[in-house]
Amino acid sequence: MKVLVNGQLLKRDEAVVDIEDRGYQFGDGIYEVIRVYEGVLYGLREHAERFFRSAAEIGIDLPFSIEDLEWKLEKLVQENGVESGGVYIQTTRGVAPRKHQYEAGLAPQTTAYTFPVKKPENEQAHGVSAITDKDLRWLRCDIKSLNLLYNVMIKQKAYETGAYEAVLIRDGIVTEGTSSNVYAVKDGVVRTHPANQLILNGITRMNILELIRKNGWKLEEKPVTEEELRQAEEIFISSTTSEVIPVVTLDGEAVGSGVPGPLTKQLQAAFQESIQQAIGISSS
Amino acid sequence: MKVLVNGQLLKRDEAVVDIEDRGYQFGDGIYEVIRVYEGVLYGLREHAERFFRSAAEIGIDLPFSIEDLEWKLEKLVQENGVESGGVYIQTTRGVAPRKHQYEAGLAPQTTAYTFPVKKPENEQAHGVSAITDKDLRWLRCDIKSLNLLYNVMIKQKAYETGAYEAVLIRDGIVTEGTSSNVYAVKDGVVRTHPANQLILNGITRMNILELIRKNGWKLEEKPVTEEELRQAEEIFISSTTSEVIPVVTLDGEAVGSGVPGPLTKQLQAAFQESIQQAIGISSS
Repeated sequence: MKVLVNGQLLKRDEAVVDIEDRGYQFGDGIYEVIRVYEGVLYGLREHAERFFRSAAEIGIDLPFSIEDLEWKLEKLVQENGVESGGVYIQTTRGVAPRKHQYEAGLAPQTTAYTFPVKKPENEQAHGVSAITDKDLRWLRCDIKSLNLLYNVMIKQKAYETGAYEAVLIRDGIVTEGTSSNVYAVKDGVVRTHPANQLILNGITRMNILELIRKNGWKLEEKPVTEEELRQAEEIFISSTTSEVIPVVTLDGEAVGSGVPGPLTKQLQAAFQESIQQAIGISSS
Repeated sequence: MKVLVNGQLLKRDEAVVDIEDRGYQFGDGIYEVIRVYEGVLYGLREHAERFFRSAAEIGIDLPFSIEDLEWKLEKLVQENGVESGGVYIQTTRGVAPRKHQYEAGLAPQTTAYTFPVKKPENEQAHGVSAITDKDLRWLRCDIKSLNLLYNVMIKQKAYETGAYEAVLIRDGIVTEGTSSNVYAVKDGVVRTHPANQLILNGITRMNILELIRKNGWKLEEKPVTEEELRQAEEIFISSTTSEVIPVVTLDGEAVGSGVPGPLTKQLQAAFQESIQQAIGISSS
């Protein structure tokens, strides 16, 4: 397998970083995860644009263009012969003697590699259980940064209790999952937290909101309270690798009738169709 | 120069980490910075204990004892012939294919190295300027983790405006600096934020509080409001490498009479004396 390191394709075991890489000492960097379907990087432009936006938010001046990045990632996918899988890419601010502030002229360090993805078909079909926990993260969750320790701690807690995801709650309000966006359906209306500094505006989230609008379903980008979440008819989560997954149990209690709800199922079908369309366009 | 990598002393350029080290992808790890005076690791036991506490808080089971750690760091300092300087040590959860949750049995990755420290004598003598900014960090600042991006962003902001430090304010309350603890003196009483989840309880902070009590000065571990900070007679900050530094300008306004205050100066003297005592005991 090949790995992209600062624009060069290296063998996997040659891909190492310095101990004074600011990504290693401060989490001073940003990342993206992109899904590959039938050899096509799905939503590549949207991910690349968000990558540049995250970089700008923390003051990293990426030493390549969006087009360069897209071309390099496509080459990586091709080189590794990925049909179905994913691409992980991150850029850190660079290598320098450790101090919080940084000098101008650091060389950002970019690494990218491909990885296998098992489509979570079972979870998508039957739904998963989730727990809730406090959202104690920083207040710039809109930046897709490498500072993910809290997400790790709470995802691990979910994992150890046999749950697929943890839904984070800040001041009585549902924000998002540890690595997904969260949606609740009540009276036929899909509600999800608005895209502000409290959540990461998922590319899958944006695709889903577009599908909801296109299909004429009711949508509110408005915070869901913890109480409303517990009374929801349907709950589902979305992410690049999970796609759309129903949550059928929350903190051990059945959500709605305890099986994937009708709106979630329709949305899943619409999402799969939109992937097929996008791939068809890209590979034609 | 030698670097400690998982217990082995390696040459500096051999010290590299894998791109899938969880420290690199999630900031999933912890660290300490320890000052070396006259070849002695100052406060080594306190730093080592805090290192173990941070590890425990995020569920990393360190594969060595406190005594092992101390012995290895002392050997590193000796090997590199450090008389005056610092030691940086960090441990990450280990290397694994990227996903938020982690399996049991990962091998934590520990790296440590020495670095030069220029004692900030000028800053200590004449004081520094500081700015204030919002504290948007996570709510587990008591863990000395590698998730330092917000600290980096705000320290950089201070640095670019010519300030030495930024004082963070959450909900109208002074928490701490981006890499220091903050103290305000009003009516002869030293006030500083209590050691809870909103601040990192600095080893230097603990030493200072002990010195204040020992000298019979008045102390309150009680939050300082932003308004109280702006009306303080004296402000000072503390950290392992800064020791005790007076803040004489805050957001461009003079603090008190605009020069280091009497209490701060007495405390600085007491702190230097306590270092000398500690070194004397350790090296005798």
